[in-house]
Amino acid sequence: MSEKILVIGGVAAGPKTACRVKRLLPDAEVVVVDQDNLISYGGCGIPYFVSGDVSDEKELRSTSFHVVRDEGFFSQAKGVTMLTRTRALVIDRQAKTVSVEQLDTGETNELPYDKLVLATGSVPNRLQIPGADLEGVYVVNDMHRAIAIKNDLAQGKVNKAVVIGGGAIGLEMAESLADLWGIETTVLEYMDQLLPRIVDPAFAAMLEKHLRDNNVAVYTGESATGLESDDAGRVCRVTTPKRSIDADLVIMSVGVRPRTDLAREAGLLVSPQGGIVVNNRMQTSDPAIYAAGDCVEISNQVSGMKNNAPMGSLANRQGRVAADNIAGIPSQFEGWVGSFIMKAFECCIGGTGLSRTTAKGLGYDVEVAITAQSDRAHFFPTQAVIMLQMVFDKTSRKVLGLQGFGPMNDSVLARINAAAGLIAKGAYIEDFSNLELAYAPPFSTAVDALNATANVADNLAAGRLRTLSIEDFLEWMAKPQAKPGWVALDIRHPKEAAGFVEKFGSDLWKDIPYVNVRARHKELPEDKTLIIICDAGTRSSEVQVFLDSVGREDNFVLGGGFNAIRRISVDWWPS
Amino acid sequence: MSEKILVIGGVAAGPKTACRVKRLLPDAEVVVVDQDNLISYGGCGIPYFVSGDVSDEKELRSTSFHVVRDEGFFSQAKGVTMLTRTRALVIDRQAKTVSVEQLDTGETNELPYDKLVLATGSVPNRLQIPGADLEGVYVVNDMHRAIAIKNDLAQGKVNKAVVIGGGAIGLEMAESLADLWGIETTVLEYMDQLLPRIVDPAFAAMLEKHLRDNNVAVYTGESATGLESDDAGRVCRVTTPKRSIDADLVIMSVGVRPRTDLAREAGLLVSPQGGIVVNNRMQTSDPAIYAAGDCVEISNQVSGMKNNAPMGSLANRQGRVAADNIAGIPSQFEGWVGSFIMKAFECCIGGTGLSRTTAKGLGYDVEVAITAQSDRAHFFPTQAVIMLQMVFDKTSRKVLGLQGFGPMNDSVLARINAAAGLIAKGAYIEDFSNLELAYAPPFSTAVDALNATANVADNLAAGRLRTLSIEDFLEWMAKPQAKPGWVALDIRHPKEAAGFVEKFGSDLWKDIPYVNVRARHKELPEDKTLIIICDAGTRSSEVQVFLDSVGREDNFVLGGGFNAIRRISVDWWPS
Repeated sequence: MSEKILVIGGVAAGPKTACRVKRLLPDAEVVVVDQDNLISYGGCGIPYFVSGDVSDEKELRSTSFHVVRDEGFFSQAKGVTMLTRTRALVIDRQAKTVSVEQLDTGETNELPYDKLVLATGSVPNRLQIPGADLEGVYVVNDMHRAIAIKNDLAQGKVNKAVVIGGGAIGLEMAESLADLWGIETTVLEYMDQLLPRIVDPAFAAMLEKHLRDNNVAVYTGESATGLESDDAGRVCRVTTPKRSIDADLVIMSVGVRPRTDLAREAGLLVSPQGGIVVNNRMQTSDPAIYAAGDCVEISNQVSGMKNNAPMGSLANRQGRVAADNIAGIPSQFEGWVGSFIMKAFECCIGGTGLSRTTAKGLGYDVEVAITAQSDRAHFFPTQAVIMLQMVFDKTSRKVLGLQGFGPMNDSVLARINAAAGLIAKGAYIEDFSNLELAYAPPFSTAVDALNATANVADNLAAGRLRTLSIEDFLEWMAKPQAKPGWVALDIRHPKEAAGFVEKFGSDLWKDIPYVNVRARHKELPEDKTLIIICDAGTRSSEVQVFLDSVGREDNFVLGGGFNAIRRISVDWWPS
Repeated sequence: MSEKILVIGGVAAGPKTACRVKRLLPDAEVVVVDQDNLISYGGCGIPYFVSGDVSDEKELRSTSFHVVRDEGFFSQAKGVTMLTRTRALVIDRQAKTVSVEQLDTGETNELPYDKLVLATGSVPNRLQIPGADLEGVYVVNDMHRAIAIKNDLAQGKVNKAVVIGGGAIGLEMAESLADLWGIETTVLEYMDQLLPRIVDPAFAAMLEKHLRDNNVAVYTGESATGLESDDAGRVCRVTTPKRSIDADLVIMSVGVRPRTDLAREAGLLVSPQGGIVVNNRMQTSDPAIYAAGDCVEISNQVSGMKNNAPMGSLANRQGRVAADNIAGIPSQFEGWVGSFIMKAFECCIGGTGLSRTTAKGLGYDVEVAITAQSDRAHFFPTQAVIMLQMVFDKTSRKVLGLQGFGPMNDSVLARINAAAGLIAKGAYIEDFSNLELAYAPPFSTAVDALNATANVADNLAAGRLRTLSIEDFLEWMAKPQAKPGWVALDIRHPKEAAGFVEKFGSDLWKDIPYVNVRARHKELPEDKTLIIICDAGTRSSEVQVFLDSVGREDNFVLGGGFNAIRRISVDWWPS
């Protein structure tokens, strides 16, 4: 008798597991149940469907060869039975059955299994605030909501929108509303930065400025406390402790939690954080039951901590591993490292591994190296600056994470991808200094931006470089008189420095061009702390070494230089 | 007394070593000698200077902040003495001196050193054929030649050009001549493919077609045997055994060899292949003498073989390691892995690690996995197909190399860079299946093209997939009657297959759409070997699994599918 494989969940991990199992065990009977009628879609594409980049929702549910992945497709092409509009009610682990209800008929049924796969996904969080259920308030977690939002937009119902939540999905939605529909859009984030925990404050600030430059209002450290309705019962206003914002569309994007009711009720181990507990073969506490995707808890490969990591890319990988093991192939899912990337208008932001904030919280001896290097040869016409930050442990020299901010192309991706595998494997700073990235002037620099960042980290770890963080620099600039002992040493071209000397006065702002510091260093005030400033930090590092060598050691380099500061909104920049 | 560091060579590794040594040992006297007056330039940028993408040769000799790196710059900014037009004549290892000649005055001099660094670079090969010294025949190895070529172009002296040598530099030069100057350009390569040894035949063929589509004539397996001159003594024609080609500019780009005369004459160990022998601290057989850049021999991290690897990016890394060790920091240069990338008109080609050809020659149990996947979500408007090939050892499952061909953006770079560090560290197929690349629809797919390629390799290594190579498929198509037992099974959309059925006849070319194979497989002829064809190979793999499961095991999948074949010039493609 052929083996019966039952999968609960038909979006990402579920279909992936089902189809691979069927390929590995062609004689098996593979059945997938899902309560929805729309299945096997690219949920990460929803912002691009809403924006109009993707014109038809069917494209999110189609193969690369343009066939819609519906029940008929799974049956004909894959040999997999897909039962849609079918809700799994209870798992009977002794009998090895799942009772299911056909939602259109109310009919219930017992489906037998030899192996069961839980791919039940996640549930979007919803703020418990007044008005959360008004018309025009959406969470974005399935195709039906995506279609409803796009209908509202297409029918001209929306002029102003508020996105509650400054995580990746919220920001992608904000871009899609503001960019292609021209809607007056506001983002509210209750933490004091965008992409909290994912990136560090300086990188979040660069993203924030770019969103503002593209007409998205951003308020961080500010929660939505209520939603008000117009006479027709549609949302018309969002209130916060500081203001009230008109809005005829509100998107709540405040995270998700694993959907684990079925697993919990069946007595499977579920972690206190909420994810189904699995081993690295994606097997639950019942050896006949596997789980994969947003519903499980997985290990972070850098920190070893267990987390829920709801990502379509991880769901697919986990599904493959679950399928392999069901078929007797001992594949392992080693955990996740936290790679991500996000488009925001003409820029992108990405990262992998731990942020400085997260790493500090875990007790690492954290330091960061920030650079502002050309993505390709500085003489190549299309070159642009990318900002990179390497997070590392000063004691062990282990690289913990990398963040990048740059133009909207694949240049940041190329560095994040290069780092992801190495960080997952516990690589050290020197592995990145020596990393042989592909080089030609139209693509990169002889010393790639990522190598250069590792070299800065090397100098920092060895105590050959002392930097001032962007945050400390901004604090100083906001109130220069609070640090009377500090003086800026601006080593850029005199034309670049002039506006600053004029604005801050030559007592606070000294300018000696980089090439003249060796000759003119004696002009510098003796009893001051020098903050050395250039565009990228590279020249400043050289100047620090020189000043140290002549006994002028009370100095710090502004890491990342003015290329970092220029990307952040500040009110003191000379006009 | 301050330590004396003497560096011979002022292009890449030399200045890098000198400047870093000076930063690490601020009290040292650091002197660099170079026989040229133009120093510290980005030699890899020469094709882009010749093309006009870079308008002024000074840009190749400038910092990213637009200061020319001349003697004054090195002295003022770096504290390094740069002696140009100064040729090193003899090293006296006992006395620790180098005698040098100032070329403009003829004056000679003894320069003392505590540590000596040889960064003498490479010498371009020149074919010993009649006419090799004619006016208008250039090797491209320094700025003077680059300037001379551009002058010829600017003065309208050139209408037709021949590039001898189909390596990366030759092809970049061919592009720059054909693209921006509209010159009728021909490439001659004596091996039977472009980029020999660097990429495998199928990838070279894709590049070749793209060059042809952009009006570059390409003849492989064909040597230049002579150059003829016009009455004025300028080259006017190139002859080969098969043809004669008009040309008023000839570029010889037939490789380089390490420049090691000085080292050899000083009795330092120089390998039979020609490079100066160094340990992984870039120290020669004389502990007081270091060497870095094109003049040394280094280890390949995958094969362990010693090679000369003349790349600006490696020169910089080696320079840093040499400087560290001179200053007492025990950095190591672990070797090279062979990462490269090259622009060719609207496409790019890149790779890292070993090619199939090279790996086979070294005795590995080589197999390749070829895919044709979308670089970003297939529903995202800017998506394009990238071709990837993973070279792996079937016995050990170690990944030996990766090649990519795709559109001219950073999408291939992002995959090559992701693989480079892992391959250098000896990673296995499963490390690539699980590699967590950054994902969002504008940048990648949930299962990244690189993950997908590893998954194909996994299936191949485990014997779950049998492919026909592109070469074997092309051989068959060129002469279908030679394999009377073979039949194509085209599972693409009937509209796509129709032209092939019509051209080859329904006995040779069966078409059953992918979604119908399960229902219609009994229509297939029983006694034939089926070659299963789709666009990317993915659907074909599924069909193979299914056919195997119904006992129809005499079948092969065309790896990479028609997306590979379409990128190669063939004369049998239906119009």
